[in-house]
Amino acid sequence: MSKSLKISVAGLGTVGAGVLSLLRTNGAEISRKCGRDIEVVAVSARDASRDRGVNISAFKWFDNPVTMARESDCDVFVELIGGDSGVARDSCEAAFSSGKSVVTANKALIANGGKGLALLAEEKGLGLAYEGAVAGGIPIVKSIKEGLAGNKITGLYGILNGTCNYILTTMGGTGRDFEDVLAEAQKLGYAEVDPAMDVDGIDTAHKLSILASLAFGNEVNFSDTFIEGIRDISALDIRFANELGYRIKLLGIAQATKSGIVQRVHPCMVGLDSPVSHVEGVYNAIVVQGDYLGPTVYEGRGAGAGPTASAVVADLIDIARGIKSPAFGRPACDLENCKISPIDDHIGSYYIRLMVLDRPGVFADVAGVLRDEEVSMEAILQRTRSPGESVPVVMTTHDVKEKSIQCALKRFEEYETVVEEPKIIRIEPLTL
Amino acid sequence: MSKSLKISVAGLGTVGAGVLSLLRTNGAEISRKCGRDIEVVAVSARDASRDRGVNISAFKWFDNPVTMARESDCDVFVELIGGDSGVARDSCEAAFSSGKSVVTANKALIANGGKGLALLAEEKGLGLAYEGAVAGGIPIVKSIKEGLAGNKITGLYGILNGTCNYILTTMGGTGRDFEDVLAEAQKLGYAEVDPAMDVDGIDTAHKLSILASLAFGNEVNFSDTFIEGIRDISALDIRFANELGYRIKLLGIAQATKSGIVQRVHPCMVGLDSPVSHVEGVYNAIVVQGDYLGPTVYEGRGAGAGPTASAVVADLIDIARGIKSPAFGRPACDLENCKISPIDDHIGSYYIRLMVLDRPGVFADVAGVLRDEEVSMEAILQRTRSPGESVPVVMTTHDVKEKSIQCALKRFEEYETVVEEPKIIRIEPLTL
Repeated sequence: MSKSLKISVAGLGTVGAGVLSLLRTNGAEISRKCGRDIEVVAVSARDASRDRGVNISAFKWFDNPVTMARESDCDVFVELIGGDSGVARDSCEAAFSSGKSVVTANKALIANGGKGLALLAEEKGLGLAYEGAVAGGIPIVKSIKEGLAGNKITGLYGILNGTCNYILTTMGGTGRDFEDVLAEAQKLGYAEVDPAMDVDGIDTAHKLSILASLAFGNEVNFSDTFIEGIRDISALDIRFANELGYRIKLLGIAQATKSGIVQRVHPCMVGLDSPVSHVEGVYNAIVVQGDYLGPTVYEGRGAGAGPTASAVVADLIDIARGIKSPAFGRPACDLENCKISPIDDHIGSYYIRLMVLDRPGVFADVAGVLRDEEVSMEAILQRTRSPGESVPVVMTTHDVKEKSIQCALKRFEEYETVVEEPKIIRIEPLTL
Repeated sequence: MSKSLKISVAGLGTVGAGVLSLLRTNGAEISRKCGRDIEVVAVSARDASRDRGVNISAFKWFDNPVTMARESDCDVFVELIGGDSGVARDSCEAAFSSGKSVVTANKALIANGGKGLALLAEEKGLGLAYEGAVAGGIPIVKSIKEGLAGNKITGLYGILNGTCNYILTTMGGTGRDFEDVLAEAQKLGYAEVDPAMDVDGIDTAHKLSILASLAFGNEVNFSDTFIEGIRDISALDIRFANELGYRIKLLGIAQATKSGIVQRVHPCMVGLDSPVSHVEGVYNAIVVQGDYLGPTVYEGRGAGAGPTASAVVADLIDIARGIKSPAFGRPACDLENCKISPIDDHIGSYYIRLMVLDRPGVFADVAGVLRDEEVSMEAILQRTRSPGESVPVVMTTHDVKEKSIQCALKRFEEYETVVEEPKIIRIEPLTL
C-alpha cells in the first residue's frame, strides 16, 4: 500500500466532527478503495476541550488554523471554518503557499473568490475541491464537472437550501405562517438563530453562482445574482398556489442565453409535474440540462453532518486516488467574465396578489393598469366578498417582461383601494 | 496544449455515430476543459458505406475491430459493438494487450466478465471505463464509485430500462394491454424487433449487477440475479394497482444484507410517495442509500444516442484529464465473491390476483389456502360479480416469505375454480 494521505482539519463543528467520524467508521473500506490510508494528523478549532462526540486526542492541536495550514505536516488542508474571508481565506492561502491541497465545504468562500483560490492552486499544481459547498452530499459538482463534461450545459435550476424548503413545505402542509414555522425550525435546529443567510436567499445564491460557473465556464459571480428570499411568502399565497395547481419553492435558476447569463434566486411557482415540486423538507434537488444528455435530476439531503461529511471525504478520496480535475472544470485563467443578464429583462408569467378594498370600480382600476402596461392575464381568482373590507385579488399572467410587471406594481400602489404592498411570485414552467 | 488523446471507435450504430457527432459539435469546448484535444483516428463497423449522418472519411477505416484494437495508433479503444462475447470481448482484450485503455457502453460485456477485463486493465496500468453501460448519460457509475465513495452503501434500486418504463407508463395512461403497446413501441423505435433483452428484464439485470458490484465491492454477478420481466403485466393489474394507490414499475433492487447480497429484477408495486413512482416514459432513475449521505436520487434519459454518447465522452474526458479510478472502485483482485441471497428468502408484501369462477365457497377455499401457508392478508378487492363466470379476486398481504407465497400459488392452481395462472406482484415500500 502507498503511503497515507495526511490531512489536517480546521473547524470541528457539525461537519468537521462528521468528517472525523466518517473517516473513523469507514476508514478501512476507504483505504481499500484508495489503495492507501487517509490519516488525520492535525486539527484546529475554537475550543480544544469541547465534547464533539469524537476523540481528537491523537491529533496534533493548533489554536490557529492559519498556523496549522502553514506548519502541519500534511498533504491536504480541510477548511470547515466558514465565512467568505478572514481566517477561512487566510488559512486556504497559507495551505497553498506551503504546498498543500485544499478541500472545503465553504460556499461563501468559493462564491466570493473561488477563481483566485483556483489560480493559486493551479500555479502550484495543487488541488482545490469543494463538493460539500453545494447541495450537501449530492455529487453535483463532480457530476457537472466530470460526468456531464461532454455536454454544452444550457441551464440548471434547483432547490439548494434545505432550511427554506423545510419552511415552505411545512407552511404548505400546515397552513401556518412564515414567522411561526421559522421559529419552530430554529427550535428544531433546522434554521440558524440568525436565519438571514438561508431565508433571504443568500446561501442559495452562493451555491447557484458556483454551479453556474461550473456549467457555463464563467467566473463565479455571486454579487450580480438577483436574490429574493422567502420572508414575504404568506400562508395565503401558498393556499392560492395550491388552488392554481402549483407549489411554491425557493429556486436558484441559471441559464446561458444570448444576452448573458441568467442567475436568479427567488420563490417560484412550479407545476405539480415539475421534477422539483415533490421535493420536500430538507431535501435538495438540482436539474441540469445538457445538449446531448437532456435533463438529469439529482436529489438528496442538502445539509447536515453526514451528507456534507460524505462530500468532503469524497474529495479526499479523489486526491488519495490521484484524481484531480480543475476546480471549475477548466483552467481558472480560461474562466470568462460574462455579463449577468438583468432581472428587468426576464420574460415569464407571474402570480400577482393584491389586497384591495371590496368596492365597486376597483377591479376596473386594476384591469386598466394591466392594460396600460401590456400585461395580459391568464386567470383571475376572487373568491371572498366582504364589502368595504380588504379582499385578495389573485391574477396569473401570460408571458410578460419583468419590467412591465414592476411598472404595474408601482402604479397599483398609487391607488388607495390597494391596501397592502402587491405581491408577485414568478411562475416557472419546469418539466422534464 | 498537451498532445491529443487519440481514440479509435468500434461500432458506428446509434451510439457510435452519437459519439462522433458530440466530439465534433462540442470538441473545442472539450479541448478547453481537458487541456488537450480528443482526436478520432480510426473507426470500424460492419458497413463502411452506410450513411450515418456523420462524415467518417477523415478516419482510418478497419473492417475488423480486433485488428483496429491491436494495430491502430491510439490511446483509447472505444467499444460500441455490443454483446457479451465474440468480437466485443476479443477487441477489448486486444486493446489491453497492445497498451490501450478501453471505454465501452456494453453492459452485457461488463456484467458477464467485467472483473476479468478490470484485471487485464490493472495489470497493464490501463483504464477501463463504462459509464454508458448503465442508465445512459446519468453519471451513476461515477457517482457511486467516486461521489459516494466515503459511504458504506447499504442498498440501491432503480428503473434501469427505458423501454419497459415506456411500455408500463403507456399501459397505465391508456389502459391498453402489453402486446399492443409493445407493438407500438417497436414501431416507434423504443423497443427492439426482438424485445426479449428489455421486456424480460435481462438488460435491467445486467445494469443492476454492475451497480451492485460498484456499491458493495462484490464481483459482478449477473447469473445469480433473480429476474422477472414485464410480459405478464396486464392492463387489469395496472388498474388494480392504481386503485390500491400504487404504480407498477420494473425495478432492479440490490441490498447488502447479513445473509448475502440481494439482487432482484421484477415488476414492483410502489407507492405514489416513492421517488420512482413519478418517473415516466423512457426515463431512468436510481436511488442509492449511503450510511452517511442517506438516500440520493439520480434521474434522466436512460438510453439513446445523445445520452449514451454523453456518458462515453465523459469517460474519454476523464482519461484525457488523467483521471483514473479502478473500474469497480477498488482493485479488481479485492472484489469479493459474495453469496447472492435466494429469492425464496425474500420477505415482503404481495399483490395477488386470482381469476376465479364466481361460485359459492370459492373464497373460503382461497382464504383456507392462505391460512394454511400463514399468509396474512391486508386488503381484498372483489368488485365485479357475474355468477358462474370468472372474476378477479385481488388481495394484498402483510409481510410474508416468498416461499409461502409460492406454496400458496401452487395450491391455488389445484382448484378448478381458479381458472388462470395466479399473478403476483411484489409490493416495495420505497420512500426517501
